[in-house]
Amino acid sequence: MSDARIGDLDRKDLASRAAGAWAERTQAARAGRDGAVDPSLRAHFAQIQRVGGVAIATTSDGVGTKVELAERTGVYRTLGFDLVAMVADDLAAAGVVPLSLTNVLDVDHIDPVVVEQLMAGLAEACLAADMCVTGGEIAELGPRVGGYGTGMHLNWCATAIGTLPDGQAPLSGSALQVGDVLVGLPSPGLRSNGLTLARGVLESHFGPDWHTVASGGSTWGLRLLTPSVIYSPHLTALRLAVGDALTGCAHITGGGVPNKLGRVLRATGLGAALRRPLPPSAEIAELAMIGSVAPVDAWRVWNQGHGMILCLRPAAVEAALALLAARGCPGAVIGAVVDEPGVHIWHQGPDQPPLSYRGQP
Amino acid sequence: MSDARIGDLDRKDLASRAAGAWAERTQAARAGRDGAVDPSLRAHFAQIQRVGGVAIATTSDGVGTKVELAERTGVYRTLGFDLVAMVADDLAAAGVVPLSLTNVLDVDHIDPVVVEQLMAGLAEACLAADMCVTGGEIAELGPRVGGYGTGMHLNWCATAIGTLPDGQAPLSGSALQVGDVLVGLPSPGLRSNGLTLARGVLESHFGPDWHTVASGGSTWGLRLLTPSVIYSPHLTALRLAVGDALTGCAHITGGGVPNKLGRVLRATGLGAALRRPLPPSAEIAELAMIGSVAPVDAWRVWNQGHGMILCLRPAAVEAALALLAARGCPGAVIGAVVDEPGVHIWHQGPDQPPLSYRGQP
Repeated sequence: MSDARIGDLDRKDLASRAAGAWAERTQAARAGRDGAVDPSLRAHFAQIQRVGGVAIATTSDGVGTKVELAERTGVYRTLGFDLVAMVADDLAAAGVVPLSLTNVLDVDHIDPVVVEQLMAGLAEACLAADMCVTGGEIAELGPRVGGYGTGMHLNWCATAIGTLPDGQAPLSGSALQVGDVLVGLPSPGLRSNGLTLARGVLESHFGPDWHTVASGGSTWGLRLLTPSVIYSPHLTALRLAVGDALTGCAHITGGGVPNKLGRVLRATGLGAALRRPLPPSAEIAELAMIGSVAPVDAWRVWNQGHGMILCLRPAAVEAALALLAARGCPGAVIGAVVDEPGVHIWHQGPDQPPLSYRGQP
Repeated sequence: MSDARIGDLDRKDLASRAAGAWAERTQAARAGRDGAVDPSLRAHFAQIQRVGGVAIATTSDGVGTKVELAERTGVYRTLGFDLVAMVADDLAAAGVVPLSLTNVLDVDHIDPVVVEQLMAGLAEACLAADMCVTGGEIAELGPRVGGYGTGMHLNWCATAIGTLPDGQAPLSGSALQVGDVLVGLPSPGLRSNGLTLARGVLESHFGPDWHTVASGGSTWGLRLLTPSVIYSPHLTALRLAVGDALTGCAHITGGGVPNKLGRVLRATGLGAALRRPLPPSAEIAELAMIGSVAPVDAWRVWNQGHGMILCLRPAAVEAALALLAARGCPGAVIGAVVDEPGVHIWHQGPDQPPLSYRGQP
């Protein structure tokens, strides 16, 4: 199973690159005018364009197959936190302050009670992230939208808008230096990625009703539904406090630490040594054990406990950790930026050989 | 069939209102700050927010079930025109100049060849609309995305970003006056709405392979796939030329002329008398005949040949028609703004009683 997953990630990357190449042709046509794209964030998900002298950033993402957990548990109120986290934190990782979002909800058949739950949760999550919902679309698409069980099926995505604070540059990773310290921000549950592998593991082990199986004082269904932490307000506060001493930020989503931290390293060609990675969440650790998922694969599919990884100048680390702890979002030093290219993870402790991911992430 | 369709539109409207109410709570929290939403466009799809003194507009939409036509015909290159038309023209109808978009492509399983076709078409359409693609997401969702046949299935949506030209107000409809002239811009095919009813009519009449049936020198599949016209560049040029004499603009999509023109009338409570509506496209006329669709329903589901309806001060009509014709987008006078509330359509000619749509559109 894990080999097939890795192949899927490569295939998706190929399609994304084709999409990117076509997008670049359109961007060339707007160079020098309103809407022109800042080329420094090429490796990032958030993109910045200049409009009337203001830097406007956008990013789009969805909650993927995590919605199946809502369908299995009947709990729809928390998915908005996953949706906001995916887009707000892609903006924040680029140094952008998120302002607002629009959302597109594809459903097979509208159930107004479920829609109300989704939108209430989205509003709560936006308020937590200091964002507003400016608009959206609910598209009723019949059998084009599938899912679990007999209730309303849905796929849900959003596009977030943000801006760069006055005088600040995007956080592209180009300022990274050897010796910059890596700080990990812990993530509970699975966040909103790697759900397909998780469901596959649980279904193989517990059968089709795996979500009802008691586990960890709850059920596997509710454990996988654990809402994503929204880090963006903490990132905004941190950048305000430490300024350019925050040199990079990776939002760990699909492709895991190797892919997402690798994108931050791309601008300089430097590497990352994670000598003390965070522990994976209890859910991820148990899933890896149940499914016999090899560490080299688990680190590619799951975040292994890391919601965000920050790159900081050494002199700023103490103040950054104090600020994050005071905001209820404690971080920990997990490693450093190094000369050797690639992402190297001492997942079994500092005395065992590391996992090393090299090449284009 | 048509009664059920009307009921669906009402149900969707209810869910949209719930979503809107939750969105307003989040907007209240940003009042007076970057990202604050301009309340004048409440009845519109595009929304405008102020960021650093610049008016930024956003709107989100998808191509709905029109993608099934691509799956049935194997032609994926034109869907980008439908996607760009849906979002760019919602912006343009609010007086906004579209600049860029992001897109989210949900698929069951990535076929890189099909993705390449989709993205090439999207780039072509963006270049035609003078927009760039700033980003996007391709989400592989397995059986959560369904469709026709054995190829890649997809659902596709986009969020467009635009700006108000310096010193211009949004085109909210609040300046409408009795006597303003209604100009219709013709639309070929079905644009990107009412496809579900169209497919139902054709399947009932021709069976499951209706898309292969020869019709009008082509096939029904290709006729329903007719790409949407992108009106936004013409609208931008027109507003530049006639300024405030363009008092309103309705982009005719789901809900048809009664709903979409009705939204433009909402700010003033005035009505619209369409004494000489445009003829429906050949496809719509034939579908109505084949399916015995009552006019009162057809006008609610299809655009009946109207891609856009412009509201113009009488003195500006001649210049507007000349400009549009010179740009290859000829318009025609179809009616006027009147005192009597509602949308009144003389669909059988000026000597027969009109269809009248009253109440909240």
